[in-house]
Amino acid sequence: MAAVADDAPWLRSSIGSATPDSITVGGLDLPADVMGRLSLTELAYLLIVGREPTAAERRMLDVVLVSLADHGLTPSALAARLTYTGAPEAVQGAVAAGLLGAGSVFLGPTGDTAEFLAAALVGVAPDADDATLAGVAEDAVARCRGEGRRVPGLGHPVHTDTDPRTPRLYELAAAEGLLGPHLRLLELVAAATEVQTGRRLPINGAGAGGAALVDLGIPPTSVRGVVLIARTAGLVAHLAEEARHPIGRELWLETEDRAAPLDPPT
Amino acid sequence: MAAVADDAPWLRSSIGSATPDSITVGGLDLPADVMGRLSLTELAYLLIVGREPTAAERRMLDVVLVSLADHGLTPSALAARLTYTGAPEAVQGAVAAGLLGAGSVFLGPTGDTAEFLAAALVGVAPDADDATLAGVAEDAVARCRGEGRRVPGLGHPVHTDTDPRTPRLYELAAAEGLLGPHLRLLELVAAATEVQTGRRLPINGAGAGGAALVDLGIPPTSVRGVVLIARTAGLVAHLAEEARHPIGRELWLETEDRAAPLDPPT
Amino acid sequence: MAAVADDAPWLRSSIGSATPDSITVGGLDLPADVMGRLSLTELAYLLIVGREPTAAERRMLDVVLVSLADHGLTPSALAARLTYTGAPEAVQGAVAAGLLGAGSVFLGPTGDTAEFLAAALVGVAPDADDATLAGVAEDAVARCRGEGRRVPGLGHPVHTDTDPRTPRLYELAAAEGLLGPHLRLLELVAAATEVQTGRRLPINGAGAGGAALVDLGIPPTSVRGVVLIARTAGLVAHLAEEARHPIGRELWLETEDRAAPLDPPT
Amino acid sequence: MAAVADDAPWLRSSIGSATPDSITVGGLDLPADVMGRLSLTELAYLLIVGREPTAAERRMLDVVLVSLADHGLTPSALAARLTYTGAPEAVQGAVAAGLLGAGSVFLGPTGDTAEFLAAALVGVAPDADDATLAGVAEDAVARCRGEGRRVPGLGHPVHTDTDPRTPRLYELAAAEGLLGPHLRLLELVAAATEVQTGRRLPINGAGAGGAALVDLGIPPTSVRGVVLIARTAGLVAHLAEEARHPIGRELWLETEDRAAPLDPPT
Repeated sequence: MAAVADDAPWLRSSIGSATPDSITVGGLDLPADVMGRLSLTELAYLLIVGREPTAAERRMLDVVLVSLADHGLTPSALAARLTYTGAPEAVQGAVAAGLLGAGSVFLGPTGDTAEFLAAALVGVAPDADDATLAGVAEDAVARCRGEGRRVPGLGHPVHTDTDPRTPRLYELAAAEGLLGPHLRLLELVAAATEVQTGRRLPINGAGAGGAALVDLGIPPTSVRGVVLIARTAGLVAHLAEEARHPIGRELWLETEDRAAPLDPPT
Repeated sequence: MAAVADDAPWLRSSIGSATPDSITVGGLDLPADVMGRLSLTELAYLLIVGREPTAAERRMLDVVLVSLADHGLTPSALAARLTYTGAPEAVQGAVAAGLLGAGSVFLGPTGDTAEFLAAALVGVAPDADDATLAGVAEDAVARCRGEGRRVPGLGHPVHTDTDPRTPRLYELAAAEGLLGPHLRLLELVAAATEVQTGRRLPINGAGAGGAALVDLGIPPTSVRGVVLIARTAGLVAHLAEEARHPIGRELWLETEDRAAPLDPPT
Repeated sequence: MAAVADDAPWLRSSIGSATPDSITVGGLDLPADVMGRLSLTELAYLLIVGREPTAAERRMLDVVLVSLADHGLTPSALAARLTYTGAPEAVQGAVAAGLLGAGSVFLGPTGDTAEFLAAALVGVAPDADDATLAGVAEDAVARCRGEGRRVPGLGHPVHTDTDPRTPRLYELAAAEGLLGPHLRLLELVAAATEVQTGRRLPINGAGAGGAALVDLGIPPTSVRGVVLIARTAGLVAHLAEEARHPIGRELWLETEDRAAPLDPPT
Repeated sequence: MAAVADDAPWLRSSIGSATPDSITVGGLDLPADVMGRLSLTELAYLLIVGREPTAAERRMLDVVLVSLADHGLTPSALAARLTYTGAPEAVQGAVAAGLLGAGSVFLGPTGDTAEFLAAALVGVAPDADDATLAGVAEDAVARCRGEGRRVPGLGHPVHTDTDPRTPRLYELAAAEGLLGPHLRLLELVAAATEVQTGRRLPINGAGAGGAALVDLGIPPTSVRGVVLIARTAGLVAHLAEEARHPIGRELWLETEDRAAPLDPPT
């Protein structure tokens, strides 16, 4: 910290720092206290939450991360591969292109569900009983519908009956003693939605993951970011495969060849 | 797979796929065989290498990932934070902006070292003795210098004497029985460089990490991508902190206020 | 168009196409009918609006584009420069990083204003008289405030009294005969806001630009994109200057050096 | 400029600045001297080159920009559209994703040609005669081939005989009196390549554009950036069309449906 820092009280960070003979990350000495002791999942938790996770929390965070790491040849994976076709020397650009599709339609719903549930639980005791949470759910769903918004975390274009990740995630959370108020509320939100709309929508994996992350202590506004860690792993795997067995070039040439003219806007 | 797939032998992927009631990732059933069993680190290894890591490989991969996850308020972290200042609603863009700085100057050297060492070892037996590897190192360094290129993996602007990550990484690799030909060659490359140039440059953490990843079975061309997984974790932590204690706005206003005019190009 | 195109009625585009001896852009032969005849501004208009602009429309589009091209060492320009520091070999990544900050806080307001005004004018005749538009403005402002949202297009952190771009833009639009309903409505929105809040906020350049673009025939949802064309020009200039007189490296080193520790989250 | 600026001689910029009642861009008062007088093309030239273009230079710069703005449903355009599918609310991310594919394979060759020609012309008089330039070309091609590199600016996967942009660009440059040493050298490079390899490769539009930009005074290292201005216009047009007639979602679903399994890496 230099002398001018007195003039910059805003310039503070606890993530990391370095001197000629030491590197500190999350307040720990990197070589001595992190390397060989913490996994990437544990370090991410430490840096985001401000303390190391328990063993159960670490296992549950990995459950959520692996559940969101990849979904095959999604728009995000295709964008990354097509970017690699044009700029194979800058793989960071291909990964970035893939992440940029993690918006309101894909992956964003994980954060939306987290923020929706957290907002509904403001002022509610973490150990509130089911009846209390059911009332919270009814109100939250009614308010959401009243504003013409979709209830986040429910429904899936492919997994119309049950998202196979959801029951497994709930099972593992229960086994770890981490079935917290956000996961519990999400089940009651699904039930309240069915009552109020007459239509059953399954809890999707994105929503369940978002609820689980908040129950793990991740700030709701950071949930969307945490998902990107998992997704980067999937994208890097797609690009390793693209280097070995490219599909971007053929996808482009075939698409261009098949395209028909469109009338211009009027 | 639809009927047209017969016409598209190029359109193949082993990363992931989904049906209405199942999700497969890396050839495994996601809910049953991945969630609750594999960590994010293990899944990334599986998807990139094509098989699950051993326990030692998993631990060593985590050693490398945590060693590269963050280095404080780097240009990459600052770019992510300044992007968040303008577009806090699109955190994927801020993470992408941070990753885009992982080029030839920062993080890229990890991949450069991996490719340099792997190229030097083409045709060399994985269990070659030290004398053989020393000869490989001498030739590789001489060729590199002859082409006017810097030897990758050596030297650091801050850690001029010793990069504190490097001895720890070698120690842990030895303890795990994973001190493979790339890590061994890198030490001999440092020695050969000192002999040929008369100047000692320490092995930097980026270079040691790159060598370790190839010894773990990561394809050299995928090393640069793997580093991005680690770095995404660091960037998401910076953005969580930026949401809690913003520095982007003040950094901008102060920088703009301090800037003096520059003569235009002539 | 290949035979399979019959199966893909969705696969249509009017932007561009190529054969071995021709290139078509916006329905025109690129070498014969575009090169040497249309400016970049005119081609952008043609591709987005579907027809060539009149001379007045072209001049006015350039007025808006140059007014939004650059604002000095903004967070966006700094993010681009810091990305260049790490990856100078991939300038597309540095430009992309700069664009990613064009979100809800910066540049986004141009599109927000465009969409706000266009929504308010649904069903209103383009040549509605001032009294009608004043009523539209009052209702739109009241609705906006009722929803707890800021009225877009008003106020500026630096130009608190008058944004110097705004009167000039209105003057030029009037001179070109292009003072359309969106620009007219924005003035009345500013007046209605002052009446309803008791506080005068100047029309900012972003808002005036957004209104002008819709009056020019740009679809409101494309306004935010059009702004990016202008901003790319500014960012490329920043990066040309960064290559000549770098500031990214010093900004990073000084910032890191000045940073003090922050207490971790609790 | 604050007092601390004395300590920061590195912190200088001539692109733009603002005070409460003025905005300066490229040393000019934005409202008075830029808006209504300069086109976006002219402002870009001013900011990058440091002076306003002549009328001929402005026309020629527009020739190059429109020639590079779009090539239909390229990998870059598809990546932008697929990103929009996932994050339609953050159009800056979709444009960024499209730009990220402007690497060594696409658009990068424009900058590669510019740098190759400029390097060959170091120390050569701008008005050197054809015989001198022919010798420069022979040497440059021989050196390039000796290093095992492709001569940049020649050959095209689709326009195998003649790139239709090239003769038109040369014709317009001659008409404007802007057929400078880089464009002249490129023709001689094509001839020397045919002599040395026995194979005729046409000058491609990317290469001709790169040569023309350096003849216009654009620094060779900034050529790659200038191309991005043109390409942003094309990408924004693709996204405006994608909003009107989406193809990203169907392209994704069809691609995923057609994909067959791939054997994992061994």
